[in-house]
Amino acid sequence: MGGIQIHLKREERSYPIEIGELPSIEIEGKCGIVTNPKVGGLHLDYLLPKVKADELYIITLPDGEDYKNMESLTFLLDRLFDHRFDRRSTLIAFGGGVIGDMTGFGAAIYQRGIPFIQIPTTLLAQVDASVGGKTGINNRFGKNLIGAFHQPEAVYIDTYFLKTLPEREFAAGVAEIIKMAVIFDREFFNWLEGADLSREEDLRKAIGRSIELKAEIVALDEREGGVRASLNYGHTFAHVIENETGYRRYLHGEAVAMGMVLANRLALQLGLLKEEEARRIEELLKRYNLPTRYPIEDPEGFYDRFFLDKKSRGSQIAFVLPKGIGSFEIRRDIERERVLAVLRESAP
Amino acid sequence: MGGIQIHLKREERSYPIEIGELPSIEIEGKCGIVTNPKVGGLHLDYLLPKVKADELYIITLPDGEDYKNMESLTFLLDRLFDHRFDRRSTLIAFGGGVIGDMTGFGAAIYQRGIPFIQIPTTLLAQVDASVGGKTGINNRFGKNLIGAFHQPEAVYIDTYFLKTLPEREFAAGVAEIIKMAVIFDREFFNWLEGADLSREEDLRKAIGRSIELKAEIVALDEREGGVRASLNYGHTFAHVIENETGYRRYLHGEAVAMGMVLANRLALQLGLLKEEEARRIEELLKRYNLPTRYPIEDPEGFYDRFFLDKKSRGSQIAFVLPKGIGSFEIRRDIERERVLAVLRESAP
Repeated sequence: MGGIQIHLKREERSYPIEIGELPSIEIEGKCGIVTNPKVGGLHLDYLLPKVKADELYIITLPDGEDYKNMESLTFLLDRLFDHRFDRRSTLIAFGGGVIGDMTGFGAAIYQRGIPFIQIPTTLLAQVDASVGGKTGINNRFGKNLIGAFHQPEAVYIDTYFLKTLPEREFAAGVAEIIKMAVIFDREFFNWLEGADLSREEDLRKAIGRSIELKAEIVALDEREGGVRASLNYGHTFAHVIENETGYRRYLHGEAVAMGMVLANRLALQLGLLKEEEARRIEELLKRYNLPTRYPIEDPEGFYDRFFLDKKSRGSQIAFVLPKGIGSFEIRRDIERERVLAVLRESAP
Repeated sequence: MGGIQIHLKREERSYPIEIGELPSIEIEGKCGIVTNPKVGGLHLDYLLPKVKADELYIITLPDGEDYKNMESLTFLLDRLFDHRFDRRSTLIAFGGGVIGDMTGFGAAIYQRGIPFIQIPTTLLAQVDASVGGKTGINNRFGKNLIGAFHQPEAVYIDTYFLKTLPEREFAAGVAEIIKMAVIFDREFFNWLEGADLSREEDLRKAIGRSIELKAEIVALDEREGGVRASLNYGHTFAHVIENETGYRRYLHGEAVAMGMVLANRLALQLGLLKEEEARRIEELLKRYNLPTRYPIEDPEGFYDRFFLDKKSRGSQIAFVLPKGIGSFEIRRDIERERVLAVLRESAP
């Protein structure tokens, strides 16, 4: 057989994540600000004076995870075609994680890829969704099942937007911050125990450190082959909790908080974590009124749902477990019975 | 403002393109062969004995450009979800350019990207669509407007499938081969003038050389910023011809043949090409019964349609023009009147 080897050059890319007051943003060509009615109504008057573009359009998508679907995506893409966006046009994702995921995915596939900027307006999106390049939509089979990796040109994080954020949503963001500290940075965790995130200065520091940690991991592993899986601490359980409760009862961060506590129990069982450390983590979560106990009615059913998760490979489930505070282990070898024992402890 | 710089590592990637009898293909995990009823009916008996996978599924999409749309894509993705494909499952695109584009795009966005293999069964797909990583679908605004760059794991090119290809489709593939020779390789063009592509040996050589040339260009410029635009020789005109005729009257390669002749006229006007060279190109196209004259009823209307093309940036149209045989120039500075003069020569 005649063989030709094609070798693709990839350019290394980098982009800035800026934390502080939103700077002026100058865009050459057309710009589409993608937002939802709530964020648009509250904050477009703050954003608009700071954006300069040759042509500026506001595109409003319906609010909420339920609308993170193909229909909203098609609506977004159609508006870009209506306004004759070309490959040099830019999108700005202005909202929470749902807006970020849909805008990023739209930017990924519009004419095979156009630039986008992230301006996350929820704490969760600021510390988590805006870093990593994951974009996508849900469908009837599950969450984020259709998507792409598409990196933003820049991420601007301004805590101004958090002033209007409901308390539960704020706490859900804090859960992700605590998660980062537990798996990666003992010193950061110690600092968090003494910090007060209702204070602007502490909040900025906590956001900054969480993003630094996530950025390091993502840079090592853009496509989630290895170490990036560590970010799923608490998530393996959280996905099942969200699935069982129809994605309605808990915010994602709340499910993650309960998932972390379950992962900690498993880590305790395996001797990876001390009682005292598990208690400190739970205390910190509780301080922000995060739920830490999910009543598991049907442990076997709960266990089976692990296998519906797209992250499971074959029949092995990867559990990310804290190894003390500030370190972790990924375990794929844990017997069903051991996991079930932990799940049974959470019977209602 | 606090600033964090995220720097993404990209791995260089390469993949083989093999020309000759289809080898055995061993796939770990699940494999989906995506095809259309015609290709499936004719050639699955040839393909199936050569594919080994843990689980094998055949997914049949409707045939033709009209079905290269969101509906077919959703149908494809839904079948992958039905069969619980995971991130290590593999797709095989088994068909012409439409199947390749849809399968590639499906692979690009299914769970943010899974591997796929191309087995192109038309000459056009073998020389053109299977190299370059462009994937996508059409919508009511135009062709290939939604898509992604997603490189295959491997491309297998077996001329066996061309035995059942209708003559017009074969010729349409030859048009792309001639295109590559004209813009990149004088020696290859000279060889083509003496070759007989109905002979297996010559055909393989022509396919191989075309792919080598395209692979070189794509490797230089994966995302179509610069030199890759040269591949659009003939296409700027061809897109308008296809658009005016509702994508029905001509095959893509036929439109490209007529577009090349129009580009040559413009090159003649600008002194880039000699009469004799233009004649030789037209002769070679005619030898394969390719159309070389498109009757332009309304030159101004034709000209305006250039601006509907996604490849035009702002108000400048990029014309790829041969500079003698084997070389090219990309010109963005050609006055409307000069182009119109060429279009008027093609009045019916």
